Amino acid sequence: MKNETTMKQTTIFPANNETDTAVIRPIHGGITAPAGFAAAGVKAGIKYPDRKDMALIYSEVPAVTAGSFTTNIVKAAPVLWDMEIVEKQETARTVIINAGIANACTGQTGIANCRQTAAIAAATLGVEENEVLLGSTGVIGMTLPMEKIEAGVHALAKEKAATIAAGTQAAEAIMTTDTVVKEAAVRLVIDGKQVTIGGMAKGAGMICPNMATLLSYVTTDANISKEALTQAVNEVVADTFNMITVDGDTSTNDTWLVLANGLAANVMITLPDDSGKNEGYEIFKDGLYYIGKKLAKMIAADGEGATTLISVNVAGADSKLHAAKLAKSVAGSNLVKAAVYGRDANWGRIICALGYAGVDFDPEKVRLSFADQAGQVNIYADGCGLPFDEEKVKQLLSADEVVINIDMGSSFATCQAAKPSEEGWEAAKFAATAWGCDLTEDYIKINADYRS
Amino acid sequence: MKNETTMKQTTIFPANNETDTAVIRPIHGGITAPAGFAAAGVKAGIKYPDRKDMALIYSEVPAVTAGSFTTNIVKAAPVLWDMEIVEKQETARTVIINAGIANACTGQTGIANCRQTAAIAAATLGVEENEVLLGSTGVIGMTLPMEKIEAGVHALAKEKAATIAAGTQAAEAIMTTDTVVKEAAVRLVIDGKQVTIGGMAKGAGMICPNMATLLSYVTTDANISKEALTQAVNEVVADTFNMITVDGDTSTNDTWLVLANGLAANVMITLPDDSGKNEGYEIFKDGLYYIGKKLAKMIAADGEGATTLISVNVAGADSKLHAAKLAKSVAGSNLVKAAVYGRDANWGRIICALGYAGVDFDPEKVRLSFADQAGQVNIYADGCGLPFDEEKVKQLLSADEVVINIDMGSSFATCQAAKPSEEGWEAAKFAATAWGCDLTEDYIKINADYRS
Repeated sequence: MKNETTMKQTTIFPANNETDTAVIRPIHGGITAPAGFAAAGVKAGIKYPDRKDMALIYSEVPAVTAGSFTTNIVKAAPVLWDMEIVEKQETARTVIINAGIANACTGQTGIANCRQTAAIAAATLGVEENEVLLGSTGVIGMTLPMEKIEAGVHALAKEKAATIAAGTQAAEAIMTTDTVVKEAAVRLVIDGKQVTIGGMAKGAGMICPNMATLLSYVTTDANISKEALTQAVNEVVADTFNMITVDGDTSTNDTWLVLANGLAANVMITLPDDSGKNEGYEIFKDGLYYIGKKLAKMIAADGEGATTLISVNVAGADSKLHAAKLAKSVAGSNLVKAAVYGRDANWGRIICALGYAGVDFDPEKVRLSFADQAGQVNIYADGCGLPFDEEKVKQLLSADEVVINIDMGSSFATCQAAKPSEEGWEAAKFAATAWGCDLTEDYIKINADYRS
Repeated sequence: MKNETTMKQTTIFPANNETDTAVIRPIHGGITAPAGFAAAGVKAGIKYPDRKDMALIYSEVPAVTAGSFTTNIVKAAPVLWDMEIVEKQETARTVIINAGIANACTGQTGIANCRQTAAIAAATLGVEENEVLLGSTGVIGMTLPMEKIEAGVHALAKEKAATIAAGTQAAEAIMTTDTVVKEAAVRLVIDGKQVTIGGMAKGAGMICPNMATLLSYVTTDANISKEALTQAVNEVVADTFNMITVDGDTSTNDTWLVLANGLAANVMITLPDDSGKNEGYEIFKDGLYYIGKKLAKMIAADGEGATTLISVNVAGADSKLHAAKLAKSVAGSNLVKAAVYGRDANWGRIICALGYAGVDFDPEKVRLSFADQAGQVNIYADGCGLPFDEEKVKQLLSADEVVINIDMGSSFATCQAAKPSEEGWEAAKFAATAWGCDLTEDYIKINADYRS
């Protein structure tokens, strides 16, 4: 392990391997992978005539809850509902989610519909109203068809199961313009006990953090305090969901909820004390980071109309915040996104996007390259373009993941990696990665007439 | 005039008439409309084989100069060149502009090429090197073909003429993906003397202020001090070029230059003193505002792939800065732009874009309508959508200019107009207008392979 780290120091941008160590082991499944969670996805006919559009997450026992919500001033009714529950209650039991209608900009009716949905779910599932969390995604401004919602809740209660397949059905049911189901799960060992974390997400359009993915839900059987879970969520969201952008539009409905039901029976994970390290917390956070990053990248790759994922690694910045702003500026540039779609190595647009990120730097010190697992092609240094093999770069730009590596040069010698995860959190101080996707004609087609 | 103002107070969003009073009279022409200015546009073969791609502006006598330049950290060589001249010199004589290559990210070679171009122009035109301003637009990262530039300067010197047609040829020569020539001119009376202001611009892509249009040049025969001209430029740019957005990408080359040669022989316009009013300055600024706004709107309407201009009027905000941020957030939203292209009254995206503008407000107080000269259709109030005539709105969304009126409600009673110009500068305190365009498949086509 020590050797591996040493080796990586010689490579500014290591290949983008997924973490797979003895500590964090990816497994099959999603929200039903942890012990004590059931799920369901059903067709409720809310907007789509022939698709699953309501989902349920259910914990056998009360689950400690933390969340991260949209920073948009205009918050959908279910977001306001969840924020209050997460703030006031230690635990929750269930989440009811619908696709098709966002229940945003719906005034007092929208809030009343949340209360009614929670009451129906509480009565049907045998829980308290304030243990019911809600999520909605879809068109803004329409009110929920409450009869369909009521029938949907009943169907969800009937279908709910603790199987992996049931989790997948829930993940299908929260999709809107998504083209792939987004699930992930990992197994950790904390305190000698097996702990599992599972998650699902939907994205596609109106994706620009703070906060980011329209909807993502993570379950875990970890035994963890509310404070520790809340801090882990806040730390992880900054490097995962808040680092993706599809179109720069921050939704009214963005919600990331994490439910921890404690059934793994590990000694309770608490916040690190002043002395510093807390191994259980660190392992849990790494696991949560793995899930968050995997789902976030899936959302970026499946952006509306996208043909490729764009990963922008910025290193050598003078602060973490600046690294993140620079990476997101490049990943969010319409002109960069359109150039990638055209497989056009128009690197000037990348330098330009760095320049308007609102961060001061010396353009002469910036170095830019395109990369894949095999290596990288240098494109720009010392304030000028470099001669490069156009064919090789076209090939890199035609991959499923286009990797743009940028070294801001401010601390070149001390910058070890562009990726926060793999060198641990300390090494990430001056580096950040943002994920986006290319901008295509299909994005326009999807969004020019989304309401109908 | 007093009556007209009173009447307008009853209308939150007056119809979008162009100013045409005895004081500011629009006239035919562009940069050669004022006395003592000549221009030319020639084919130099820099990038386009069969198009004009070099332009000249020339003043018979030294002209007081002011400018506004890109805020991008990465500034093209000609921008750095111009900034130094505008800062250090009181006057300049000529501007040489090329299209096709931006001379950005070209390091020391780029600066040397600026110096060489200025030397060639100085020798050819009989002026000093530090009287030669430069402008470039096009692909980032390529170096200028200096032999072609030299031949181009000679051709420009040979062709230069003070005719309106010569001004138009210069306006044609600075175009890249623009589809229409952008010129404007007005005549003012200051101090009993006839004063003329003329301008040209090019825009199309990579358009997002601060500063905004890729390139715009304004000439005037006004006699005005450097300080007064500089302040007028700073005041006008904030409400015109800095209020347009095509794709959110702030270019490395944005330049607005104003040259005033004094040949109108009015008493020198100086800055207003502490006592307040200075009629000459106010008239000149209004004329410059007219030119700036007209060119800015032409740039927005001619955004790459655009089929319609989008004007976003925000009133009732709690500050001018907030009004501007809110208006620009809506005008710049990819989802709003795509919905307008689809003639889809997806107003939720507008409310959503207000919500992530970074300005605090009460969503329940916001009122939203679509408008044309004949009136407006109310869409949203009190936190909810209103019932509206879909056919009528589709018609409004199919016009050449789509007008979105937004009242933030913060100071509804005191807010008189959404348009800074027509009620004078004071009334604009809580209102702002931003201009953009729809987002279409053609934007993608143009930008997916711009380099080739």
